[in-house]
Amino acid sequence: MDVLISEVGPRDGLQSISRIMPTAAKKAWVDAAAAAGVTEIEVGSFVPAKLLPQLADTGEIVAHAVNIPGLTVAVLVPNARGAEAAIAAGAHKITLPLSCSETHSLANLRRTHGQVLEEAASISRLIAALPVERRPHFEGSLSTVFGCTLEGAIPDAQIARLAESLMAAGCDEVGLADTTGYADPRAVRHIIKLVRGAVGDAAVMGIHLHNTRGLGLANVLASLEAGLTTFDSSLGGLGGCPFAPGASGNIVTEDLVYMLEAMGISTGIDLEALFAVRRLVGAALEGEPLYGFTPEAGLPLGFVPANSVQGASA
Amino acid sequence: MDVLISEVGPRDGLQSISRIMPTAAKKAWVDAAAAAGVTEIEVGSFVPAKLLPQLADTGEIVAHAVNIPGLTVAVLVPNARGAEAAIAAGAHKITLPLSCSETHSLANLRRTHGQVLEEAASISRLIAALPVERRPHFEGSLSTVFGCTLEGAIPDAQIARLAESLMAAGCDEVGLADTTGYADPRAVRHIIKLVRGAVGDAAVMGIHLHNTRGLGLANVLASLEAGLTTFDSSLGGLGGCPFAPGASGNIVTEDLVYMLEAMGISTGIDLEALFAVRRLVGAALEGEPLYGFTPEAGLPLGFVPANSVQGASA
Repeated sequence: MDVLISEVGPRDGLQSISRIMPTAAKKAWVDAAAAAGVTEIEVGSFVPAKLLPQLADTGEIVAHAVNIPGLTVAVLVPNARGAEAAIAAGAHKITLPLSCSETHSLANLRRTHGQVLEEAASISRLIAALPVERRPHFEGSLSTVFGCTLEGAIPDAQIARLAESLMAAGCDEVGLADTTGYADPRAVRHIIKLVRGAVGDAAVMGIHLHNTRGLGLANVLASLEAGLTTFDSSLGGLGGCPFAPGASGNIVTEDLVYMLEAMGISTGIDLEALFAVRRLVGAALEGEPLYGFTPEAGLPLGFVPANSVQGASA
Repeated sequence: MDVLISEVGPRDGLQSISRIMPTAAKKAWVDAAAAAGVTEIEVGSFVPAKLLPQLADTGEIVAHAVNIPGLTVAVLVPNARGAEAAIAAGAHKITLPLSCSETHSLANLRRTHGQVLEEAASISRLIAALPVERRPHFEGSLSTVFGCTLEGAIPDAQIARLAESLMAAGCDEVGLADTTGYADPRAVRHIIKLVRGAVGDAAVMGIHLHNTRGLGLANVLASLEAGLTTFDSSLGGLGGCPFAPGASGNIVTEDLVYMLEAMGISTGIDLEALFAVRRLVGAALEGEPLYGFTPEAGLPLGFVPANSVQGASA
């Protein structure tokens, strides 16, 4: 496996649609995705159920998913209280978002940068208190790092300082998130260089890109070339039409995996099996629009996935 | 202007939908696109009207468009007879497609490679007989160069030989066309290197990409990095849903221009004016679906197009 696809549909996709997917259907999704070769799934978020009833069963999904061999079970948490629940459920990876735009942070979470960084430090202490073998991986994710709909561009110095602060607060890794769909390939290269310059290459390996302006896969290509190896995406682009209110505009897992495999970059994911997961989830969410081109267009005649390529042309 | 966007909607878009756009509406489209800064438009195709009634007025559109200062008026021709009509109308650029897949060439045009190359040689003779100032630019376009739905992958040696044959037949330039939507960024790099190796870098500057599997803009990025500077695209991705029968799946001009301008690469095209052209064409083709993300999502807060950028970060 050359790159890691982190499937965020069960969290980011489902929180963006209003209907609630039954717990059994979520478990079936996670099972089928893992069977197709997906090795990391963000299965939910530990937020109050009254805020996101779609994700109220996250604890149960985590408890189910951790039994799947080889699967990294990831969750999002807004604070240390969420991290406590994530640890109790046995999550392998915990992501705490920190919005580079303080205006956005205050509007969405009612927290200053300093307050979010305090939560990060509290989470690090919770993790440090665990036996080594039970410690989850802890990612601080720089959201709105490519710009904010309220503030516009974020100054480089502020981004670098926040990345350093997350590492100082005990994060294992700094993630990059194009929350607003503002990224373009040049900006991707610039931000990766900036944040890696601040905290080191090894601490910046993953990116969460949106397809809000159609540039999602071009931005993946730029990220790959800049050395990143972990990409978030959502099955069927779930969460919907990227310009509808509240929709996420996630990049589509099926198209992402197709692009990488066509390029000879192994994802470990079987495309036909992934299309079957799409059909499964589509049936469970009947009427909900799914996005992506490759499942409808089909694979090219004579298509050879990366795993089968021997000495492919560069 | 750093790159040339060649708008192919009036030809490739309109030939892919069944309704016939009135001549006056086509002229208004061409006028508005040119006013928005588009400097090359493929306005039609000189094919028998019974085959493509949508493009039966190509001669009239060419005659209109050549009066627009600074605009390169391009047309597609299937053979020397079409080229004669194109020359009579005053077209500035003539493109003759040569399908790398001979099976596809026989199925679509009922012509072998040898027969298409004879047409190319005839067109070159027609052009050479003109006064220098009236000679159109002559492009031979390698269609299905990324693979064919009937033959699958085309052997490298065959592609190189066909490119050389087009130049030997008198073409000024060899174009690359992902007719089937099979291209991926690695294949793009490979094919550009292959064809440039066969006929020289200066003879390979342009590419016609489709978005059939969602990789259109990623393939543009790879093409840019490999040195190409001319990109075909269609307003609103006109021609429609890429997996519907007969649809072209062209990349969307609006998203392409947005990506390039966001990257600091000047297209000479004003995005807000381009969105107005989209509304104009959408109204003229009411009910026809238009594609693309940027027009709906809008430009990022504080967006700075390439022309305005001074010493932008690399």
